Amino acid sequence: MDLEALLNRIVEPDQSVAAEAQAHLDNLTKPRGSLGRLEELARWLCVVRGTTDISQPRPAVGVFAADHGVCAAGVSLFPQEVTAQMVYNFLRGGAGINVFARQVGADVVVVDVGVAAELADAQGLIKAKVAPGTADMTRGPAMSRDQALKAIGVGTDVAARLISEGYDLLVPGEMGIGNTTAASAITAVLCARAVAEVTGRGTGLDDEALRHKIGVIEKAIATNRPDPGDALGVLAAVGGLEIAAICGLILEAAASSIPVVLDGFISTAGALVAAKLKPEVVHYLLAGHCSVEAGHKIQLETLGLKPLLNLELRLGEGTGGVLAVGLVRAAVAMFTEMATFESAGVSDEKGRQE
Amino acid sequence: MDLEALLNRIVEPDQSVAAEAQAHLDNLTKPRGSLGRLEELARWLCVVRGTTDISQPRPAVGVFAADHGVCAAGVSLFPQEVTAQMVYNFLRGGAGINVFARQVGADVVVVDVGVAAELADAQGLIKAKVAPGTADMTRGPAMSRDQALKAIGVGTDVAARLISEGYDLLVPGEMGIGNTTAASAITAVLCARAVAEVTGRGTGLDDEALRHKIGVIEKAIATNRPDPGDALGVLAAVGGLEIAAICGLILEAAASSIPVVLDGFISTAGALVAAKLKPEVVHYLLAGHCSVEAGHKIQLETLGLKPLLNLELRLGEGTGGVLAVGLVRAAVAMFTEMATFESAGVSDEKGRQE
Repeated sequence: MDLEALLNRIVEPDQSVAAEAQAHLDNLTKPRGSLGRLEELARWLCVVRGTTDISQPRPAVGVFAADHGVCAAGVSLFPQEVTAQMVYNFLRGGAGINVFARQVGADVVVVDVGVAAELADAQGLIKAKVAPGTADMTRGPAMSRDQALKAIGVGTDVAARLISEGYDLLVPGEMGIGNTTAASAITAVLCARAVAEVTGRGTGLDDEALRHKIGVIEKAIATNRPDPGDALGVLAAVGGLEIAAICGLILEAAASSIPVVLDGFISTAGALVAAKLKPEVVHYLLAGHCSVEAGHKIQLETLGLKPLLNLELRLGEGTGGVLAVGLVRAAVAMFTEMATFESAGVSDEKGRQE
Repeated sequence: MDLEALLNRIVEPDQSVAAEAQAHLDNLTKPRGSLGRLEELARWLCVVRGTTDISQPRPAVGVFAADHGVCAAGVSLFPQEVTAQMVYNFLRGGAGINVFARQVGADVVVVDVGVAAELADAQGLIKAKVAPGTADMTRGPAMSRDQALKAIGVGTDVAARLISEGYDLLVPGEMGIGNTTAASAITAVLCARAVAEVTGRGTGLDDEALRHKIGVIEKAIATNRPDPGDALGVLAAVGGLEIAAICGLILEAAASSIPVVLDGFISTAGALVAAKLKPEVVHYLLAGHCSVEAGHKIQLETLGLKPLLNLELRLGEGTGGVLAVGLVRAAVAMFTEMATFESAGVSDEKGRQE
């Protein structure tokens, strides 16, 4: 995995397309700017794709699953086996991400990048295990730099494969019992915040369990002393294999001018690492929603992204990203299907019939 | 139109269904409560329908078009002809509401309840003109009580027809140049707020035009002195024919246990009147979004409704309501398609495999 070559492929998109997109939006039969964030969304999509000749996207979700050694420290209500159990649930189509993906016409691929169990072959499962879970980060680094790099490579490979199959909108998703702990650690370090500020209840911890979780993360950071200027080092020390893969998916998408819709706290931790490696990636990112997890808002502020939905979600898997795809579809439909003042014979703001 | 008989048919739905719905939600393969407002939405739908045996709705949008005599006072950037021009745009499928309705599988009917022009017959157009626009409310009442009642009856008829055709989720929409002026007047009176607090820029007024609009509304209220305790009187004095029809649609839907998704400022003005006539209607209402129009937030607070989307929209037509239907569909899919812990063999919070 040649990270430097990948980062060199990522450039800021040509922002001049935005003005052309706006000119078209202003011709549509509606008061100027009256479709607010949907107009913003359409402009963003035109800029990322480098053209105003857009059409309905073919979205795909990549759900990366991995386990976390830090679970041994007792940071989740759910036992570690649930990671593998949920992978089978994804493959049978019964999880939240499957249900919402069907609603918006997105396909789901599931990637084992580090589940602590041997998984059976199955349609829709990509087996790319880098390790059977990370090591316990309270005792040393979660991964070696080499493992982190390999896991990034899994994400780039999945993105490249999906893009070559014709998917042109990617939603990273994840499953990994304990992964809000890793995401909080990454966020504390990369956003330079106190651990308590960026640590939430995950799947539903009570006050005491939350205090314990904060202590565990503080210990992991104290043990590893990651350098905030070294994003790969931070990822390796206190991250997770699925977070690394999400980082890779985002980098490859940005390098290929493919838009990415982010889900919540875990996915955005991957985006934070990607943006630290190459700040230009933020232009390719849409924040699908704002999660209940306190740290998510801080991540989004750091990235300069404004979330589209605010539905008090805290499920992960990619669900918030996929729900936002429905609005991306609405924005594209607006841009491509609405009549213009001229075509509809409607008078514009000045009362002129064009 | 026997308003009292209609109001007598509206009762508070049986809230006990909510607990049954929650029990099902808690069995689905996700941490409890982790789908936030989508869980709330599913519970609401079960309560309104009186059963947890719900399925994907068949949504319809009723777009009510009417003109406003107050346009003579210069309150909009757009000339009055645009109301009729936009009706033709709706009928050809080129407006925002058509585009978004297609995205979520909703059908659109257009209702002439008071356009100031003779409209040609067309597929999808219901001709039910009560008057060719309202009178100028700065000089006297916009409508007589009898006209307001007739316009309410148009809305109830449209709702009854749609429900009899099998539609089970209604979105009221509207078109009427000048109608934010009427909606602001209704809101000022029924929410007991200063006109300036509930008056916005409509389709895009500048500061001077906004001050003028506020003055016009203050004059209309001073001229008519509507009694806030008499909702029908307020509607007649400073309302609009499309707002009355929306009020009627909401009342009939509530009487028939059919959920209603509200759009923005105009639709919610109709809901305010309906809720003043019969407070129980609020149980049947979902606030699809929060509009840019300042008064919309105040209306929603008065009704005790929390908006689902916040996309900085100010188009009307029903667009924000229809966009929210996508999330209603997601909530229903979650409720009906997600696997349970037991069916998927996934361990729950306590680590038990059920």
